Amino acid sequence: MASYAIKGDFIWTEEPSRFRTMRNGYLVVDNGVIESLTEECPENYDIIDYSGHLIIPGLSDLHLHAPQYAYMGLYMDEELLAWLEKHTFPEEAKYGNIGYAEKAYTAFVKDLLSGPTTRLSAFGTIHTDSTLLLMRLLDEAGFYGFAGKVNMDRNSPDYLSEDTDVSISETIRFLDSAEGNIKPIITPRFIPSCSDKLLRKLGIIAKERNLPVQSHLDENLSEVEWVKELCPWSTSYSDAYDHFGLLGNTPTIMAHVVWPSDDEIALLSERDVFVAHAPSSNTNLSSGIAPVRKFMKNGVKTGLATDVSGGSSLSLFRVIQDAIGVSKLRWRIKDDSDSPLTTSEAFFLASKGGGAFFGKVGSFEAGFDADFSVLDESLINTPLDGLSVSERLEMYIYRAADKPVFAKYIKGKKVH
Amino acid sequence: MASYAIKGDFIWTEEPSRFRTMRNGYLVVDNGVIESLTEECPENYDIIDYSGHLIIPGLSDLHLHAPQYAYMGLYMDEELLAWLEKHTFPEEAKYGNIGYAEKAYTAFVKDLLSGPTTRLSAFGTIHTDSTLLLMRLLDEAGFYGFAGKVNMDRNSPDYLSEDTDVSISETIRFLDSAEGNIKPIITPRFIPSCSDKLLRKLGIIAKERNLPVQSHLDENLSEVEWVKELCPWSTSYSDAYDHFGLLGNTPTIMAHVVWPSDDEIALLSERDVFVAHAPSSNTNLSSGIAPVRKFMKNGVKTGLATDVSGGSSLSLFRVIQDAIGVSKLRWRIKDDSDSPLTTSEAFFLASKGGGAFFGKVGSFEAGFDADFSVLDESLINTPLDGLSVSERLEMYIYRAADKPVFAKYIKGKKVH
Repeated sequence: MASYAIKGDFIWTEEPSRFRTMRNGYLVVDNGVIESLTEECPENYDIIDYSGHLIIPGLSDLHLHAPQYAYMGLYMDEELLAWLEKHTFPEEAKYGNIGYAEKAYTAFVKDLLSGPTTRLSAFGTIHTDSTLLLMRLLDEAGFYGFAGKVNMDRNSPDYLSEDTDVSISETIRFLDSAEGNIKPIITPRFIPSCSDKLLRKLGIIAKERNLPVQSHLDENLSEVEWVKELCPWSTSYSDAYDHFGLLGNTPTIMAHVVWPSDDEIALLSERDVFVAHAPSSNTNLSSGIAPVRKFMKNGVKTGLATDVSGGSSLSLFRVIQDAIGVSKLRWRIKDDSDSPLTTSEAFFLASKGGGAFFGKVGSFEAGFDADFSVLDESLINTPLDGLSVSERLEMYIYRAADKPVFAKYIKGKKVH
Repeated sequence: MASYAIKGDFIWTEEPSRFRTMRNGYLVVDNGVIESLTEECPENYDIIDYSGHLIIPGLSDLHLHAPQYAYMGLYMDEELLAWLEKHTFPEEAKYGNIGYAEKAYTAFVKDLLSGPTTRLSAFGTIHTDSTLLLMRLLDEAGFYGFAGKVNMDRNSPDYLSEDTDVSISETIRFLDSAEGNIKPIITPRFIPSCSDKLLRKLGIIAKERNLPVQSHLDENLSEVEWVKELCPWSTSYSDAYDHFGLLGNTPTIMAHVVWPSDDEIALLSERDVFVAHAPSSNTNLSSGIAPVRKFMKNGVKTGLATDVSGGSSLSLFRVIQDAIGVSKLRWRIKDDSDSPLTTSEAFFLASKGGGAFFGKVGSFEAGFDADFSVLDESLINTPLDGLSVSERLEMYIYRAADKPVFAKYIKGKKVH
């Protein structure tokens, strides 16, 4: 069915400052693209009737590690560097076994499909074939987005480290083999795990092939110090990526950015780098609280991210909660010049804000891709009547974050 | 069935520093009390077989507002005093209607029953009959604990304020009418809403009848300032309660305690006051992060609390997550002399720590009440095998916080 109209109660954000809503509206979809959202029942369209249901735009997860889903919610008593060494690296090594990868990635995709995420940019592992498998499973489930074979050639355990030349040749093989709607993205793990030679070469590949880039930036204080030691010539962690051609020469996502200098914020803004704000993870790994209000004030493109399994839930509703929550704590105990995020602002980051990395995604404006989720409010068990559409959404975000959505469409196709 | 043995995989904390576990153990229960936890199958007992299931002690919710459940997850863009005025007071006023109270409290009890909570200390509203109804519904569902008719005779809207003498006479009627396993507790809302005369009289009633007390303390900076103005003779908010005989003359719960002075911490410790730590609420209402490590170092009795609907989930698993999370943020951005809570420490606070307010509750030691929940780990969708019992619990806490428990027993009786 290439053309149809969806009936229901719609809520979305065109700008951060406020919700837009339409009760009993019709979302007219042509070939996977939104033609209009209207109060009049359109003629000559099949109507798919979700009357009484809340319908939200697709949410985008700008940063997560698919292989870490298997142990999501474990090992939360550590900081980043110890957590990587003791738990994450041994777990990721298992994905050298394609049979294990299939079992684990299947569980991951199943869970992701039931939630509100429609777009994602995922890390795989260093293993090319497992990462291609991940992309195939996501594509078959109906997702669009990016996934990357990870590059690591230094400061990593032998069992999860590549020879520099092999890392490059496997990246080329990965890029040449990728097909389907999950596109490849250049994915150096972070500066500590990649030699200068490897980083430089990845920057060249990204530019030559016009490929997007994703990595980690300014997550943890010890990590930031380490990068200073590894790149003594750099003025900042961001400057180090920039030096290797990995900061916005092509579309770029940098995850976390908890400890940026003002100069780094200015540089990220200038280069149109997307910050993947991952408050749940930054809390779990004791990293800190990213200055999201400063990003917004300074025009840094920003979206939300689960960062599974630094984050312990695949639900972007939970990340919305946490983005609001930590912004309140930061305002109260660290910097009262940065006001907390409102519900509409956090929702904007999760929908249209992060969605912009994938094109016209995350709103109900004409010309946007028809990504949306239909919610089941019977899950929230409230005796209250007469709530407004935006009150219904706020309540859903807090009370039903980890529950399955009622239905989900990506580029107009029903996937759940 | 007065005597039986429960078979399963047990995990509990006798002290904060570590988990105890027993795989394939037998919990022997006699008349609602734990006789032993043993690896040998006991003779002459009926066996209730939950093999392969994780079994945890009952968790205690030291502070929540039952009438606020209806709008849990709404109005999270406000701080405490505005939130009370604009949203909470109008909502609580509805409980003057016993029909509304029955509908709303029934939804509350239904949700509470499906989660891991076995004991609670709840606020009702100023309405005596609605609060008695709440106690009956909780009792019929099998819960034990406390609930209080709230006292408010100043700085409150007309529609939710009592004449001082009526507040006192209604309190007496409330105390004389209460029956069942949910016992009455003296419940001045907080100092700003209660006149000196009312507070003094409540202190006398508590002492004369040997009744426990619950209230709010040091939640929000504006509230603390306000109490200074209202009680200019006091050396602190705690001292003000103490002056009225409401700080540990009888068993006492004070919720929040986000902004205590060192002297207040010493006083709370000396008076054996229980602090109800409510990290989810303290985040949602931008209150701050309570110094839980300082409470533990200074011997302040501490438990966890959802504080619905400052808190936006009825699940103490979620509160465990948040207690750990905010302690990490506090350590990172405010005071690195107070180390973050570990998983076992937060679990201890939710089980044996807060349970001590209710007697011998929250552990699998002999002589403790047989309160426990059986968990359904199929909910956590992990491909990992061979996890330890404590790893299984940690994963459950993060991945299945808001999901129903498989079975729940309170004082030996199956309630869910």
